[in-house]
Amino acid sequence: MRHQNSISGKVVMDVGCGTGILSIFCALAGAKRVYAVEASDIAVQANEVVRANHLSDKIVVLHGRVEDVNIEEKVDVIISEWMGYMLLYESMLASVIFARDKWLKPGGLILPSDATLYIAPVTHTERYSESIDFWRNVYGIDMSAMLPLAKQCAFEEPSVETITGENVLTWPYVVKYVDCYTIVAQELESVTAKYRFESMMRAPLHGFAFWFDVEFNGPTLSTSNNLYKVSPGCSASDSNQQETKKRNKPDEALVLSTAPEDAPTHWQQTLLYFYEPIELQQDQVIEGSVTLSQSQENPRFLNIHLEYSSGGRSFVKESVMR
Amino acid sequence: MRHQNSISGKVVMDVGCGTGILSIFCALAGAKRVYAVEASDIAVQANEVVRANHLSDKIVVLHGRVEDVNIEEKVDVIISEWMGYMLLYESMLASVIFARDKWLKPGGLILPSDATLYIAPVTHTERYSESIDFWRNVYGIDMSAMLPLAKQCAFEEPSVETITGENVLTWPYVVKYVDCYTIVAQELESVTAKYRFESMMRAPLHGFAFWFDVEFNGPTLSTSNNLYKVSPGCSASDSNQQETKKRNKPDEALVLSTAPEDAPTHWQQTLLYFYEPIELQQDQVIEGSVTLSQSQENPRFLNIHLEYSSGGRSFVKESVMR
Repeated sequence: MRHQNSISGKVVMDVGCGTGILSIFCALAGAKRVYAVEASDIAVQANEVVRANHLSDKIVVLHGRVEDVNIEEKVDVIISEWMGYMLLYESMLASVIFARDKWLKPGGLILPSDATLYIAPVTHTERYSESIDFWRNVYGIDMSAMLPLAKQCAFEEPSVETITGENVLTWPYVVKYVDCYTIVAQELESVTAKYRFESMMRAPLHGFAFWFDVEFNGPTLSTSNNLYKVSPGCSASDSNQQETKKRNKPDEALVLSTAPEDAPTHWQQTLLYFYEPIELQQDQVIEGSVTLSQSQENPRFLNIHLEYSSGGRSFVKESVMR
Repeated sequence: MRHQNSISGKVVMDVGCGTGILSIFCALAGAKRVYAVEASDIAVQANEVVRANHLSDKIVVLHGRVEDVNIEEKVDVIISEWMGYMLLYESMLASVIFARDKWLKPGGLILPSDATLYIAPVTHTERYSESIDFWRNVYGIDMSAMLPLAKQCAFEEPSVETITGENVLTWPYVVKYVDCYTIVAQELESVTAKYRFESMMRAPLHGFAFWFDVEFNGPTLSTSNNLYKVSPGCSASDSNQQETKKRNKPDEALVLSTAPEDAPTHWQQTLLYFYEPIELQQDQVIEGSVTLSQSQENPRFLNIHLEYSSGGRSFVKESVMR
């Protein structure tokens, strides 16, 4: 609705429309026509919802993959709720890229326009204790022999859960900035970022949290985004700083944030816990890198390769989000 | 510990020992020897827990199915935590029966000694609304076309969740009483019970709840249970009344209850919701029958066939607990 000027009278494509709610929002914002594309059988319900709301003359529900459907015109706007857990898990971004390259008019609008995935070090004694320390004394019996298995069960795989800003030890780092106008599918096959944190407090480091935000910028703002993204010598650290700047100007942008300090969402946060916490001093440095890549085992799975070192000790954690 | 007299100096078998905690309790209660039988790989940890607690001379962990293991003696006591959701889902009762028939000395003790599965009619407007009424108005849009699918998603299958005593419309009915000393495996293939409720209040009937309790009676009390169970002409309604009587005398028996009015447990309650609530008047009768049977599709699944009629209308609900 805040982009009504860019939608009214225009042709829209909704990539993965689900129940059709975003398509209906666009129709209510004055779109001339909306192509609501949905591969799953929920397309049947989407069509009924559209009919019940007397919008069949505006919204065309297409039951199929966006890669397979055919329409008679190019579109002015692409909308999509494509984000998965930790942004990229089971994300439909590749379909949005496909739709953009095939159906979007030059100068058209994409909503959301850009997305940023963050990583931050986390302390969470409560969560660690309830999964682990429980076994030290079970009705008076020492079941510490269960600890290795308990750690594996609790912490081998990434965990989607809600933490708060108090669990986060310092400012987050950008793992991946996605400009929906310029990103290409190959960039998503493997994403690597180096990070360097200084803990703001003395606390046990239990692992890392991932979250994301997406922005709904108009085409002009996106162009300026493009500018700084393609400027030479722009390192991960630079883009991190620029991201942080953008987040400090919330008035300028419409942002959906899934950060721990913001209201919880369906996406929550994604946590990667260590088997053993690391005791951090204030200002102690944690550095390393994280790589997210498509699993060979199953292209829907996400491999997470995390390297971290602190106080002269180095660790590697491999995990798979299934 | 309250049965220490029956365990001290005796030989015990723990059917499906898991982490071994019940075996350790028996050793601490003075058992001469405990055979801790566990088919899954958790047997490895059980063995380590036993060793860490210096009980390897008392507890023998046997990694295998109780149907396959071999020991050199008969046992005085069988203990087992065999209960599944709604008592019978993925229950290990058949293994307890096998162990009893093969390994238990005449006059031996089984803990728990008996179990009772209950059914009761339930009202739960909040739960129904959050799953269903949500769709009537989603950000101002009428998405009622989603209702059939929403009802199917929310209510097609049994749901394990915690309700309170306030959700229950009247006294429960016994679906199945299990005397662990006398039950035979064939009885578990299909369990049918007729019921007749009178609603204590005017309220929408949203479905039925199942829960169970298990008792830890010594051999003497169990014999008296046997007596009334085998008395001729003992209908489901009679056994229901006798169950109710037993539940009114908590001092006599050690009971683990998973009833809505008692403290929540891992088992919670199992709910079977209707797609449409039925408006009940006070004292209105709901009657019908319920059949629980092993699924042909997968022997671990539980088929639930529920017939109910009220106010002259009859319904059937078929569902599968997977």
